[in-house]
Amino acid sequence: MYYSHLFGKTTKTAPRGAKLTSHKLLYRGGFIRQSAAGYYYFLPLGWRVHQKIEDLIRREMNRTGAQEMLSPTLHPIELWQETNRTDSVAFELMTVKSRTGAQFALGGTAEEMFVDLVRRLNLSYRDLPFNIYQFSTKFRDELRSRGGLLRVREFIMKDAYSFDRDQEEFEKEYQKMKEAYQAIFAKLGLSTLVVEADSGYIGGDYCHEFIYPSSVGEDEVFACSHCDYQANKDRAEFVRQEKNPEEKIKPLKIVDQPEWVETMDDNLKHYGEPRWRYLKNVVYKDSQGRLIIASLRGDQEVNETKLKRVLDINNLVSAEDKDLEALGTRHGWVHSWGHKGAVYVGDLGLKSVKNFIGGQKEKNTDSINVNYGRDFKYPILADIVDAGQGDVCPRCREGKLEKKTGIEVGHIFQLGHHYTKLMKGANFVDEDGQEKPFYMGCYGIGLGRTLATVVEAHHDDKGIIWPKSIAPFHVYLIVLGKNEDKGEGVYQKLTKDGFEVLYDNRDKVLAGEKFADADLIGAPVRLVVSDKTGDKIEWKERSQKKTELLQYDEVTKRLEKIFR
Amino acid sequence: MYYSHLFGKTTKTAPRGAKLTSHKLLYRGGFIRQSAAGYYYFLPLGWRVHQKIEDLIRREMNRTGAQEMLSPTLHPIELWQETNRTDSVAFELMTVKSRTGAQFALGGTAEEMFVDLVRRLNLSYRDLPFNIYQFSTKFRDELRSRGGLLRVREFIMKDAYSFDRDQEEFEKEYQKMKEAYQAIFAKLGLSTLVVEADSGYIGGDYCHEFIYPSSVGEDEVFACSHCDYQANKDRAEFVRQEKNPEEKIKPLKIVDQPEWVETMDDNLKHYGEPRWRYLKNVVYKDSQGRLIIASLRGDQEVNETKLKRVLDINNLVSAEDKDLEALGTRHGWVHSWGHKGAVYVGDLGLKSVKNFIGGQKEKNTDSINVNYGRDFKYPILADIVDAGQGDVCPRCREGKLEKKTGIEVGHIFQLGHHYTKLMKGANFVDEDGQEKPFYMGCYGIGLGRTLATVVEAHHDDKGIIWPKSIAPFHVYLIVLGKNEDKGEGVYQKLTKDGFEVLYDNRDKVLAGEKFADADLIGAPVRLVVSDKTGDKIEWKERSQKKTELLQYDEVTKRLEKIFR
Repeated sequence: MYYSHLFGKTTKTAPRGAKLTSHKLLYRGGFIRQSAAGYYYFLPLGWRVHQKIEDLIRREMNRTGAQEMLSPTLHPIELWQETNRTDSVAFELMTVKSRTGAQFALGGTAEEMFVDLVRRLNLSYRDLPFNIYQFSTKFRDELRSRGGLLRVREFIMKDAYSFDRDQEEFEKEYQKMKEAYQAIFAKLGLSTLVVEADSGYIGGDYCHEFIYPSSVGEDEVFACSHCDYQANKDRAEFVRQEKNPEEKIKPLKIVDQPEWVETMDDNLKHYGEPRWRYLKNVVYKDSQGRLIIASLRGDQEVNETKLKRVLDINNLVSAEDKDLEALGTRHGWVHSWGHKGAVYVGDLGLKSVKNFIGGQKEKNTDSINVNYGRDFKYPILADIVDAGQGDVCPRCREGKLEKKTGIEVGHIFQLGHHYTKLMKGANFVDEDGQEKPFYMGCYGIGLGRTLATVVEAHHDDKGIIWPKSIAPFHVYLIVLGKNEDKGEGVYQKLTKDGFEVLYDNRDKVLAGEKFADADLIGAPVRLVVSDKTGDKIEWKERSQKKTELLQYDEVTKRLEKIFR
Repeated sequence: MYYSHLFGKTTKTAPRGAKLTSHKLLYRGGFIRQSAAGYYYFLPLGWRVHQKIEDLIRREMNRTGAQEMLSPTLHPIELWQETNRTDSVAFELMTVKSRTGAQFALGGTAEEMFVDLVRRLNLSYRDLPFNIYQFSTKFRDELRSRGGLLRVREFIMKDAYSFDRDQEEFEKEYQKMKEAYQAIFAKLGLSTLVVEADSGYIGGDYCHEFIYPSSVGEDEVFACSHCDYQANKDRAEFVRQEKNPEEKIKPLKIVDQPEWVETMDDNLKHYGEPRWRYLKNVVYKDSQGRLIIASLRGDQEVNETKLKRVLDINNLVSAEDKDLEALGTRHGWVHSWGHKGAVYVGDLGLKSVKNFIGGQKEKNTDSINVNYGRDFKYPILADIVDAGQGDVCPRCREGKLEKKTGIEVGHIFQLGHHYTKLMKGANFVDEDGQEKPFYMGCYGIGLGRTLATVVEAHHDDKGIIWPKSIAPFHVYLIVLGKNEDKGEGVYQKLTKDGFEVLYDNRDKVLAGEKFADADLIGAPVRLVVSDKTGDKIEWKERSQKKTELLQYDEVTKRLEKIFR
């Protein structure tokens, strides 16, 4: 391809307000352009990379025996109603109505579509197991998009769905997928953490995220300093160490307390004790209007995702003044027990402190020496708070958790019977003649985000440094001076030899500009033909500083070695 | 691929109500399944064919120098408003609103998206010409879908958009695309007519459809028996031959007419003259509420697409009783002149008859010997009626038009300045420093419809006969009896030699069933390993009756010849 013919050229400046390196470089290199916020064009250069990522993923998926197919992107809304996801995903689900009155969801994920297809095929155990996948456009009505490809509203996703006869068979597939994902990200030059994560509205009991550690990532994960425990913020457990084991349990006492003592800060000022010493109550409301009181240690914060998981609900909002009034209380006065009509959920940390302060604040009094188990007790005591830097690992109980941020590039889910029990008839006939629900998993990779993550991982201050597996071109060939014939000859020969060459034969463009564009676009090899190179060719790898003068044959030999 | 592992198997029966051969065979062969009406899954077999069609089109597009990219499928509605297409396409445009209040069209075609991208790149004549294309999901809110892939509501389309400096440059690109399309359809085994067609809501002055002649097609086209004139129903012109050249023009006369004479049939009964002798008036209303009277010969029918084109409007409906009342008339009494507030449009055929009957019907009278030009005359006299079988060709004026039906598999459009003048700033800077609008063309192929058309063209009563270019597998390999080892050996060797093999090693399945599945699925070559074949392999091509016993080497030699 002649650079002069290429649709979409480099530019010197990035869009105003662009913050992410990947956004700036992909824009400046002529890989992408924005349509509406969160919607991107892939220009020919960007699309070449996108297609190579797709091919790479396809090869690894096919190697596992998964089979590619395609489902429609408009999903009959009735299917999403079957699994109650019009409720749980409502916030980012777009729907559309046809002239004939049919309503559709714009697919953001396709569990229902695949289950609906499979259940209509009347399969038996003989047909199992299988894993079917697609590359298809996905829609997410995000409230907030970031510039660039890291968080967008429309993107192409590889989504795979496995169907097994039981958990045992499924575990093998899950392991296979985990390994395929590791192979994919390794080939993309992304060294990822594999962390336990929250399933969110996808459902299922457990799942793993593939996280590329990066300061621009929006995912927070914790990794143990000692063992291999890795989990994201919404899943990371930790050991609640006893705060005051040496203390003796004292009798509960009602004490005078000035009226102004309401907030945590007021308490700190009034008592001078550390934060963990106080009982804290946070009130929420779910979509049914039920009021939920989360009770925890004063030094911790509620993790709403954990809380939702514990309660098995999809939506949760902070309670308003009128909700507290309905409970007969107000902000700062919420009791740790006794509010009728509210659901109490306690964090495990309540058991790690003796003699709490607080719990039944009234106008001029409160309680002290409050002890969980003796003075109050909840039907649900669970992990509902954020882990923190330095917390003790729940697995080895030795290491400390380190907090990192990263970009989620892949996500694999155990779904179990979640969908196949909600969707009627999603069964196979087993050897014993019985109908049994399929045991499922699902596996996703967003291609655009992966592409941007590669750029975050592989660049310098001059531009992108594409891994050879997905570079838009193998070679950026530059001709300088009056050497068009020689340049053209090299270009034709390389192309004939099967290499992908972007040939910069622009007239009246300074050498420096061509070099800058080569660095910005980031093909793994730069070749130069000029007065200085004589009958040789200048070789430079994008990731190296060194230049060499080589014969054509040596050039192709090296290219073979890199790209074949 | 082992047939037993393949997701999606053959079935003996097609869905009830399936009428089209392609629908029945693609369903029965396990290529497709319906989701909602007009929405289809491609199962692995079907998707393999779809991907091969995509690759084939891609190769031919790239050969012309066109560059692949991708635009979002959700289009900001403002762009469609710029070109007034929210009005003109309203009937099949789906729209969706985001949580942030942005409105989008679900792309059914992407002219605005490509123009919007291009105009923001500030290009000059140096950047021209270019042709950019994509394979992407398209949505059409069709009132009616047919079973199978011929008319659906969601499909993948290859759409290309060319940008040129002027008409002269564009003509070259248009010709190139025409040739590329001919090459594509030839390789798909589809011998197509290239017919002049109507641009509809796409816009532009002219366009060509690629029509595969088929009795199940919904497009009507006319082809000259003598010259190469080919045009679809909405574009086909024809010579209006004089009906009664020998007659003398007579003086207009008002004659008594019984009150019951209103319709064409009444006139035929009353006067006994042939249909062409009567004046006919058909009243329409456009979206602005304007009333339009189409005046024509009694033996012809209004072509509403032609009428809309002549009037440069997008929508037209039949007038209702109250509309006729507003004109002071009623059905059967509409005058060929004199209704104030109505727009008269006459067909060219009005000049081909002397001494019409009709034109000013009143309760008990009407006029006869009415002559266009003498007694009435319209500002617009144009081609607004259907051509018919046997009409005289407008090009050579010798041949007769033959009517055929067919399936539209491709469509290429001259767009000229249609979009670039409506969309502000869609200009390039020319050599003289002036800003000039791009001169455009666009070029589409629907992949699913093409796939189904190939099946309509290539099948017999046993199943599909895929052209080698897009067959899902090269070989359907069958093992019979206790020859698993031999079969497996052949399967492994063929696969290693780079051939795509669907290997039917099912146990407890009768030979006849395997042969039937081979025929139904339609791979070009069937191989059999059985007790009878000894150390040889039975070779049969799907399109032939003959079977032969061959050595393995001869098998691969022949496969090489067919598929390489």
